[in-house]
Amino acid sequence: MPDLVTSFANPIVKRYRALAARKVRRRESCFVVEGLQPVWRAVASPWDIDTLIVAPDLLTNEAARRMVDGQREAGCPVLSVSREVFAHLSDRDGPAGLAAIVRGSVDGVERFRPPSGRPVVALHQVGNPGNIGAILRSADAAGAGGVMLVGACADPLAPAAVKASMGSVFAVPMAHAESVDDLFGWSESHSRPVVAVTGNTRNSLWRTAVDARSVLLFGSEGDGLPADLVARCAASVAIPMEGTAESLNLATAASVALFELARRRDQKDRV
Amino acid sequence: MPDLVTSFANPIVKRYRALAARKVRRRESCFVVEGLQPVWRAVASPWDIDTLIVAPDLLTNEAARRMVDGQREAGCPVLSVSREVFAHLSDRDGPAGLAAIVRGSVDGVERFRPPSGRPVVALHQVGNPGNIGAILRSADAAGAGGVMLVGACADPLAPAAVKASMGSVFAVPMAHAESVDDLFGWSESHSRPVVAVTGNTRNSLWRTAVDARSVLLFGSEGDGLPADLVARCAASVAIPMEGTAESLNLATAASVALFELARRRDQKDRV
Repeated sequence: MPDLVTSFANPIVKRYRALAARKVRRRESCFVVEGLQPVWRAVASPWDIDTLIVAPDLLTNEAARRMVDGQREAGCPVLSVSREVFAHLSDRDGPAGLAAIVRGSVDGVERFRPPSGRPVVALHQVGNPGNIGAILRSADAAGAGGVMLVGACADPLAPAAVKASMGSVFAVPMAHAESVDDLFGWSESHSRPVVAVTGNTRNSLWRTAVDARSVLLFGSEGDGLPADLVARCAASVAIPMEGTAESLNLATAASVALFELARRRDQKDRV
Repeated sequence: MPDLVTSFANPIVKRYRALAARKVRRRESCFVVEGLQPVWRAVASPWDIDTLIVAPDLLTNEAARRMVDGQREAGCPVLSVSREVFAHLSDRDGPAGLAAIVRGSVDGVERFRPPSGRPVVALHQVGNPGNIGAILRSADAAGAGGVMLVGACADPLAPAAVKASMGSVFAVPMAHAESVDDLFGWSESHSRPVVAVTGNTRNSLWRTAVDARSVLLFGSEGDGLPADLVARCAASVAIPMEGTAESLNLATAASVALFELARRRDQKDRV
């Protein structure tokens, strides 16, 4: 049984906390994840684990303890910390005692190769990391090919995004397009039409054919997509709304569109 | 120009803050709402405004100022408060200077009469008010007939729910079924089949006929629906998931199902 770290001044503990800041994540090419299932998904994914952090007093799940033992035996650094130190790291009320520092960052579009035949979600200047995480979770479940961040977006590796993704951040291919030109350049060279999903069109999603390989482009919840950006897209569609609601939550809109394309793939398989 | 309230001890200010607690909301049959659009939607809805609270220093929107003046002239109590007092009430970083105490509560199912031909969402023991608010927002946009809370649920009139609903709480008929028996009793007497939406079935939503008047029943995000409850339902459907995601966010699942029924109504209109 390794020694328990009980000091808040432990360098790995301090590093974990520092990784809440985007500039530290950028500098170190690392980010953090907390919770049983999300850490498990990180371990099972191709992402590299820098350090597993475990609070043996809190981690009562036997299978998770065995997973940690297995990782330790395989050479993965594991830091055992006291309940108090874990609570100091955690952003949860009832922490489960398992967290990790993960190596990696989101690359540019150059090597972005989402599976063909699947749509890609592109998010233009979306500032809310929780929304980005929720979209990663839905993109995963709806079988989307990947998620592209366009321009000045929140970081999909921010703790709030990783948390909202429920670990899907480790499963969904991601890329960052520095500019709108990068988005269109990439889409063109991969023969994927860019389709704006916006309230400012009469084309109902229910009645519009959408290429299964489309890049579905969404704007931020507050501002939506600028008109000149919509004009550059191959097509635009709206999710038809009834009632008095003025807009949909961004993650909801992305989920409805992605599952509608999943439904169409399913229908095609049936024919 | 009325006098500005500058004291945190003003009784209406204290009452607004006290209404964050469910037992106070119950006792007074009042709840609170903050923000330009949500308050506007409350004013335009059949719900009664108890008091409008305005911070003239913060409320720069001319149309909103005129709306407040119109309400004052029509006899609605309006409390003008200083910027500091408004910040004391507000749960936002950059408050817009408009809030309200609204009269009302969620009744039992006895008088619940959602429009026929529209599905109803039923939420079984859902504890997260933000999820309930997000579902109200989607139910409104997807043209659902109403939302029923079943058993021990979070309060749809809690500040976090009202906030997440973006004002749709004032547009969507709601009811609270004390027990599962109340849910089934109501559904039967209104000839609405209860359809469980659950991961534990092989019936794909894409391939299953669903009565347009159905009560779509969802469980809490953590626990889902108990098997004995699913067994009592007329049918069960799953939203087909791909990838490695283990579940959908509850509000996402409800949105995807409600918009799928909206799509089918649209398709029927077309034929």
